[in-house]
Amino acid sequence: MNPYCYKLTIAYDGRNYSGWQIQPNGLSIQEIIQNKIAIILKEKIIVHGSGRTDAKVHAMNQTAHFHISIKIDERRFLHSLNALLPMDIRIKSIEEMPFEFHARYKATGKIYHYHIYLDRVIDPFKYHYRWHVHQKLDLESLRSAAKLFLGTHDFTSFTNETHKGTVVYDSIRTLLRLDVILEDGGIRLEFEGDGFLYKMVRNITGFLVEVAKGKRSSSEISYILQAKDRTKSGPAAPPQGLFLMDVLY
Amino acid sequence: MNPYCYKLTIAYDGRNYSGWQIQPNGLSIQEIIQNKIAIILKEKIIVHGSGRTDAKVHAMNQTAHFHISIKIDERRFLHSLNALLPMDIRIKSIEEMPFEFHARYKATGKIYHYHIYLDRVIDPFKYHYRWHVHQKLDLESLRSAAKLFLGTHDFTSFTNETHKGTVVYDSIRTLLRLDVILEDGGIRLEFEGDGFLYKMVRNITGFLVEVAKGKRSSSEISYILQAKDRTKSGPAAPPQGLFLMDVLY
Repeated sequence: MNPYCYKLTIAYDGRNYSGWQIQPNGLSIQEIIQNKIAIILKEKIIVHGSGRTDAKVHAMNQTAHFHISIKIDERRFLHSLNALLPMDIRIKSIEEMPFEFHARYKATGKIYHYHIYLDRVIDPFKYHYRWHVHQKLDLESLRSAAKLFLGTHDFTSFTNETHKGTVVYDSIRTLLRLDVILEDGGIRLEFEGDGFLYKMVRNITGFLVEVAKGKRSSSEISYILQAKDRTKSGPAAPPQGLFLMDVLY
Repeated sequence: MNPYCYKLTIAYDGRNYSGWQIQPNGLSIQEIIQNKIAIILKEKIIVHGSGRTDAKVHAMNQTAHFHISIKIDERRFLHSLNALLPMDIRIKSIEEMPFEFHARYKATGKIYHYHIYLDRVIDPFKYHYRWHVHQKLDLESLRSAAKLFLGTHDFTSFTNETHKGTVVYDSIRTLLRLDVILEDGGIRLEFEGDGFLYKMVRNITGFLVEVAKGKRSSSEISYILQAKDRTKSGPAAPPQGLFLMDVLY
């Protein structure tokens, strides 16, 4: 394997992309970055992200790593790569890492923010970055319900991950923080945990909004977690309100 | 003339539009709003804005008025109009006004913000909403120079307005406030005045940035204002950093 390892910190506006991860149909952020790096370094590499983000989901600090045969002049590389990339994908920094670094497996935690807009008329600048909820929300119920997700649980009921044929699959995660913060026009849910299952933030957010609308009750949460059944929770919140804010190492 | 007068408060993201005002080529915000109102009210009306904004310039609170033959159910109208408009144009409010109200002639002042991004790598979410200046700026020079624009002046040297054949044209305006505020990634210039000439904010901003780069000196300002000659000032700042924040009555 190539001896040099580099870590990228990446911000992107997900509105025009089919998500982080390369896929047969649609334009992924991973693919664009890989292709531009290949142009600059004249070497085919694979950029390993800290995890996938879905279509229309945004990132302030996604991380990724790649191995390469040569040492890179970081400052020049950052400039060249940003010059080739579309303006809605920006490399914020590049740093050399020990060979063993891995953006996904070495991550010890992640922070996501989910933004909900509550005012009647949405700010036209926020349309692609908020879930606009038109009904009145009971924020006290939302806050109480949010607390019940804290701690270590099997989050199978709140993920769309399917693992047919996988013998062992660890769906236990620890949620360290789930804060409900008032912000201009609405609220922001701040999630911090040791890791998140596929669609976990959006599924928890979707459920919390149902509680805040009075359609579901926080008393169901303990039962739903125990059921380990995705059909027990409810609809996911839409992608455009979600931001990957930080990956912790 | 139609007896009822209504005032609209409008927010728009200017990135996809050729500006506020109807013009032969390009899609204007005025035209879109007029067309949608005609669909709802089945009456052709003219929407008079507080002033034009250029292509790619944004507004948080543009104002406009129109006269119409019938009384409007404001709540229903607001809902219908926003449902028909593209998401990057939002009507924030509609209110009935006295017949004599005029969005442009009754305005007593305006507030504009101009956003400049200074960090090396621009946040991908801000690209369409900032002027990204790559050189280092001397903010103390910028602040001192900004103060020299305050007060009542003939701003002919800082407007692109041409008035061939106009006998009397008033190019005297009073700038009440020009604050330089630090914000995430850069600075914001806040302009408040009794009125602004065409491109005045962008021309003053362009000049102030030249001063902050050390290319021009604040000692030139008094001479340039007296010269009443657009060629004496310098290049305009680009449109995408400019926001019309408020129209005062």
